[in-house]
Amino acid sequence: MNVIFDKERCELDSPVMMPKASGFLWNSSMMLHANCRGYVVSQFMQPEPAKYSHAPNIEEKTFMQPEVPYYTEHPGRFVYVKDENSKEMFSAPYEPMRCSPEKYKFSVRRDKIVWYAENYGIGIEMQLSLPRDEALELWKIKVKNKSKKKRQLSIYPYFTVGYMSWMNQEGIYNPDLQAIVCSSVTPYQKKEDYEAIKNYKDKTFLLTEKEPYAWEAAQEEFGGEGSLSMPDGVVADKLSNGEARYETPVCVFQYRMDMNPSEEKEFRFLFGPAKTEEEIASVRKKYFGVSDYRMTDAFALAESEYAAYIAEGQGCISVKTGDEIFDNFVNTWLPHQIYYHGITNRMTMDPQIRNYLQDHMGMCYIKPDRSRDAFLFALKQQFKNGRMPDGIKLKEDTVLKYINQIPHMDHCVWLPLWLEVYLNETNDYDILNETLPFADDKEAISVFKHIDRGMAWMIKNTDSRGLCLIGQGDWCDPMNMVGYKGKGVSAWLTMAVAYACTVWAEICGKIGWSDKALEYKKTVKELNENINTYFWDGKWYARGITDDNRIFGIEKDREGKIYINPQSWALLCGAPDKEQKELMIKMVEEYLETPYGIEKLSPAYTAMQEDIGRLTQKYPGTAENGSVYNHASVFYIYALYISGEKENAYRLLRKMIPDPRRKDFIQRGQLPVFIPNYFRGAYKQIPKTAGRSSQLFNTGTVAWLYRCIIEELLGIKGIRDGVIISPQLPSEWKKAEIIRRFRGAELDIHVEREEKVNKIEVFVDGQYVPDGVIRNIRSGTSYKVSIKLPVTEERNI
Amino acid sequence: MNVIFDKERCELDSPVMMPKASGFLWNSSMMLHANCRGYVVSQFMQPEPAKYSHAPNIEEKTFMQPEVPYYTEHPGRFVYVKDENSKEMFSAPYEPMRCSPEKYKFSVRRDKIVWYAENYGIGIEMQLSLPRDEALELWKIKVKNKSKKKRQLSIYPYFTVGYMSWMNQEGIYNPDLQAIVCSSVTPYQKKEDYEAIKNYKDKTFLLTEKEPYAWEAAQEEFGGEGSLSMPDGVVADKLSNGEARYETPVCVFQYRMDMNPSEEKEFRFLFGPAKTEEEIASVRKKYFGVSDYRMTDAFALAESEYAAYIAEGQGCISVKTGDEIFDNFVNTWLPHQIYYHGITNRMTMDPQIRNYLQDHMGMCYIKPDRSRDAFLFALKQQFKNGRMPDGIKLKEDTVLKYINQIPHMDHCVWLPLWLEVYLNETNDYDILNETLPFADDKEAISVFKHIDRGMAWMIKNTDSRGLCLIGQGDWCDPMNMVGYKGKGVSAWLTMAVAYACTVWAEICGKIGWSDKALEYKKTVKELNENINTYFWDGKWYARGITDDNRIFGIEKDREGKIYINPQSWALLCGAPDKEQKELMIKMVEEYLETPYGIEKLSPAYTAMQEDIGRLTQKYPGTAENGSVYNHASVFYIYALYISGEKENAYRLLRKMIPDPRRKDFIQRGQLPVFIPNYFRGAYKQIPKTAGRSSQLFNTGTVAWLYRCIIEELLGIKGIRDGVIISPQLPSEWKKAEIIRRFRGAELDIHVEREEKVNKIEVFVDGQYVPDGVIRNIRSGTSYKVSIKLPVTEERNI
Repeated sequence: MNVIFDKERCELDSPVMMPKASGFLWNSSMMLHANCRGYVVSQFMQPEPAKYSHAPNIEEKTFMQPEVPYYTEHPGRFVYVKDENSKEMFSAPYEPMRCSPEKYKFSVRRDKIVWYAENYGIGIEMQLSLPRDEALELWKIKVKNKSKKKRQLSIYPYFTVGYMSWMNQEGIYNPDLQAIVCSSVTPYQKKEDYEAIKNYKDKTFLLTEKEPYAWEAAQEEFGGEGSLSMPDGVVADKLSNGEARYETPVCVFQYRMDMNPSEEKEFRFLFGPAKTEEEIASVRKKYFGVSDYRMTDAFALAESEYAAYIAEGQGCISVKTGDEIFDNFVNTWLPHQIYYHGITNRMTMDPQIRNYLQDHMGMCYIKPDRSRDAFLFALKQQFKNGRMPDGIKLKEDTVLKYINQIPHMDHCVWLPLWLEVYLNETNDYDILNETLPFADDKEAISVFKHIDRGMAWMIKNTDSRGLCLIGQGDWCDPMNMVGYKGKGVSAWLTMAVAYACTVWAEICGKIGWSDKALEYKKTVKELNENINTYFWDGKWYARGITDDNRIFGIEKDREGKIYINPQSWALLCGAPDKEQKELMIKMVEEYLETPYGIEKLSPAYTAMQEDIGRLTQKYPGTAENGSVYNHASVFYIYALYISGEKENAYRLLRKMIPDPRRKDFIQRGQLPVFIPNYFRGAYKQIPKTAGRSSQLFNTGTVAWLYRCIIEELLGIKGIRDGVIISPQLPSEWKKAEIIRRFRGAELDIHVEREEKVNKIEVFVDGQYVPDGVIRNIRSGTSYKVSIKLPVTEERNI
Repeated sequence: MNVIFDKERCELDSPVMMPKASGFLWNSSMMLHANCRGYVVSQFMQPEPAKYSHAPNIEEKTFMQPEVPYYTEHPGRFVYVKDENSKEMFSAPYEPMRCSPEKYKFSVRRDKIVWYAENYGIGIEMQLSLPRDEALELWKIKVKNKSKKKRQLSIYPYFTVGYMSWMNQEGIYNPDLQAIVCSSVTPYQKKEDYEAIKNYKDKTFLLTEKEPYAWEAAQEEFGGEGSLSMPDGVVADKLSNGEARYETPVCVFQYRMDMNPSEEKEFRFLFGPAKTEEEIASVRKKYFGVSDYRMTDAFALAESEYAAYIAEGQGCISVKTGDEIFDNFVNTWLPHQIYYHGITNRMTMDPQIRNYLQDHMGMCYIKPDRSRDAFLFALKQQFKNGRMPDGIKLKEDTVLKYINQIPHMDHCVWLPLWLEVYLNETNDYDILNETLPFADDKEAISVFKHIDRGMAWMIKNTDSRGLCLIGQGDWCDPMNMVGYKGKGVSAWLTMAVAYACTVWAEICGKIGWSDKALEYKKTVKELNENINTYFWDGKWYARGITDDNRIFGIEKDREGKIYINPQSWALLCGAPDKEQKELMIKMVEEYLETPYGIEKLSPAYTAMQEDIGRLTQKYPGTAENGSVYNHASVFYIYALYISGEKENAYRLLRKMIPDPRRKDFIQRGQLPVFIPNYFRGAYKQIPKTAGRSSQLFNTGTVAWLYRCIIEELLGIKGIRDGVIISPQLPSEWKKAEIIRRFRGAELDIHVEREEKVNKIEVFVDGQYVPDGVIRNIRSGTSYKVSIKLPVTEERNI
């Protein structure tokens, strides 16, 4: 197995060794997760997530799941190939026939995914792209005769439609559209639901540019006794032109062709959902039709428009450090993943407030204007009493679902954290003067006051000890039973409030409201005292105290002894003294560090703790129960940087970056194009599965990782006056080239270690800048920055 | 393909020609639907329906569905077999390897299902039974060396566990229990749901009597690249003794054995759900353990106890007519299906009131005491105003689900219909004096008054024309938009109320309340006049009039011209005159009769009619939209008998009875052990799929069919004085032997046609009984009844 990974692509040459290797594509209305073997998960918004390619049975609709298993009849896009003379058959890219290909390639790019499989001298290239906005798959399938003889071939593109509906489903070829059109009615029973149902895109179509030789629309008749591994339909001379009549539909075409040696033929398809046949006709016309305005091929144009759209999601830094894996990931793939979060809101109509704010925090580095709009959109949903809702309703009639039905206590924490990054990047302090209403009060007040009210709400929700009440939960932990009686408190939340107050106090100070700033700093001091009084367990901080006054997350617990979040956030809020810090950091390494990263807690819970809750029922090592939960890890990394622990921080940061040279990761299902929300943990308890990728690319990790890299590791952080340069490069880096796009200007930075240098020295356009601050940044200007580092440097702030 | 069908069993000798052929087993806490190829659907109650053998993905929970598609990785129970020398492999009974067996048998009995597959000289018999009460599968697997040489074999029983939960799932072999134990936590998010969740049986186990050679508990590792059609696990020498760790679990054991020619070995297994390992240990002890009291083999004892339990569901008639298919079905299988309904309440905790009452109407013929209890249980859930609820809550905290959340208007209709059959069978008029409270009023009133109040409620819900308001629906039709504005009316419901009033008037008369009886008869007369005024369309009766005053179900409609229900029930309530009757019956034959039976409406709707509703969105020919909906058909048959149309009635009745000689039915998926809720209709519109069995054995059809046969066809109906003998045998029947168990007595009846006889003549113990009534039936007594029929007789009542 080989993996090629660069800024353009990630490529793999075996579908067998890495059966879960996958890539993803998305646009403004859909998301598609495709793997190296041809399996695909796709969703579109109408406006809630919906499918046009289903499982073979009635699938439950849930939030996006990690570690989704593949199975033989999992939805996918395949091409069966048959030599009409020799009757040799195989399927590309690999499933469902599973012939080991002679040549194989799986190539993930930002704007397309390409598979190539070659067998019996026939090469099949499958290429998938999306248009910019529509929920539609653009497919190109190339057939190549790689042999030296003339061949008679049939190819059969196979697109899963699956079990659409128990009320109504069919699949019929429409010769006018040159498409198999599968129709259904979304099941419902209550009359009240009809108003939504009737507008749904309940059809799935596969539209072909070239007239097919034959087709099949009924799954069972296509597979027959041979099933998908040797379908009766493919074994027969000709597909039966069958229909699905309240049967599981499928879209299969047959093309017969003669191929000369080296000849290549291309077929193009459109696959997606539609409401009506008229809509499908207009899709046909738009992509395959001949129209006056079109100087170029419309299908190709859509592909390039999409590529341009995706390229807009460019990050604000480009680095060249000599570590190619790091460079490729940071320059291309990390901002790509951040951009995905910012554009799609994780394919939900009610994003959790904390996800929404952190995802858009990441967008501050890519599209700050979009991020600003998103923040203001959310803030309008704040309640008059200061509380933020559990989920942001993207449409007025959105219903809060799943975890958003459980009241959490941490939401306001994330407001100043977003703001800090936004101000760092844009210096747009005017945002604080924007006025907005509340969800339950039309009277508009300033953004400043909104946030201030949120902070006040957080501070108010403390108990007599001055610790934050946890209610039915806070961040990152389904701790629904710690405090539901109204008494339990959260160490993490108390720290998070202290940290948020710190950040907010600094912002208050910067805009001249020093009374406020002082007041908040006083609060922080009190909270930190309380934290040390009640939560310090001798070697680390506990996680909380239950309704029944049991402190947990402590050394004497059998499971869940130590949690990472209270350690990270204690560092952020400044609670521990030097001795405490050193001890904590040592303990984190001892208890929580694994070859795959930092575990969220350890040992993972193996049985329900009724005074903690649902977290303890989750499988040990997954999600919140002791996985290497990247979103938690990244805060620890950030906190280490803040605490000047740059070597330790970099070591952990580097571990988080997907790296094809790390076979232990890669063979556990990870392709190096994205960071999953977790790697399986419980390393000491269940080593068999530790390190597996969750395969779920929705995670607040990426925004914070980018921040760590930009503001801390590379140390190029925006401030009111301009930008401060204060890198914390690991000592192993001898030099680096960095381009930083900042407030319209470009900083062209060269960093190098020099023997004679004692501390960091910054030169801008040849001028020595003692405090490392470049002031008066002018948009449109390029600055040459040279940084000299000692061989072992200390930070200069 | 051959089918053997008798009173003991239904047997089939090919899994290929009839891929959906299936049987079912059930006990007081579970239901299991198994097919000839090894696929199984199983559910148990905890108390809501739950699964211990799941699909490979997250399946949606729904009410029981018709026409559920099978797919390669559908849950099942299989045995892989490998010759260790020749490496020949196959799987029994057929899936998932799909080797055409040299010999094959699929045998469905009431108390067990047996598969036999032979390949390469190795025979595998798989036998499945249940215990009487527990949710548990009892498996016997016999391996037979049918060849003349000594063999080294491995067999691998494979039991699907599937995707259990996204919160927690694992599978681990426990050597103390000699079982693979798969554990999970039912997913939930709201704390409030934990109270129920924590009591769930979230484990699935496969317990083996003999120590295995090896095992595998991880689905993916078992299948590997070979998948289920050639699993890596079976290809290898030895299973890897693997565990599933938050991976899809499976239960596979390997047994290696030497087998002499003709040698046979038996293996026994227990498969099912459990809450704890202690519970599994007690199951092991109970069925495989050695205990003092046990004189016989506990496993075998459980099998025979179950057989005895099932045999209790004996019907009240045994016939011998010379038509073996008819006899077997009526004597054994029909009461078995009725018994299933009565015991399990269709595996739901909130049975629809109309289903519940009709299912228990059937139970009047089998277990009248149980039926009485069920009726009284339901009647306590009536509201003070007379309305019955949409669903009966079997437990106090049951929540009404699915269709029971939509208010229907027909519920009270079914009260007197149950009562009539119950009184006919038992003569227990005392039931009318029982006193019961209401759901919303503790004051108890008599059953008589309860029913009377129900009838009054129905009569009250009429419009100014005296037609019954349909609201959001009535029976058999998701007509949720005909009358939701409060104006639309239902022809069927108006007739049903008239018919219920007729029945109720008769009961009132019998208990001497003649004023009431007259009053109700007057109501019936008025309703019938209104029916003729507003619904008669010239050739048949319309189905209803919408909120916007559009009459539908009429000749000038393009789709849904004619519905069967208004025709059947008009005959029952006595609305039509002779001329109307004859015309209607002719039109039903012309428009609705097909080779598979009577369609519910025709032509089936192909598009939404917004003034009718959801019915019109269902797929044409399925369920309520134009299928051969047996529950509707049986009322037409009953109405034909009532109307003296015995030849026509019998022709349709006979068509409904599953018959292996009718290959057109059988090849469409039906085994002759049960009547499905529908056969696919839309015969003229979509001939391809017409006649397919829904495979759903939940249907009110069976109770009414049994009534038709007992009271009408055989004409042995209970009355106050005893029993009236008035057969309506089809002229093709020349004679019949009937045993009728009735109020503790046994009527031993011989019927024969004689040339000299002019009208039906009944002789009891040799005595001629001119009115055909046998009075003063004495329990424990046997009566010899001889009936002489003219060659073409008329009915004598």
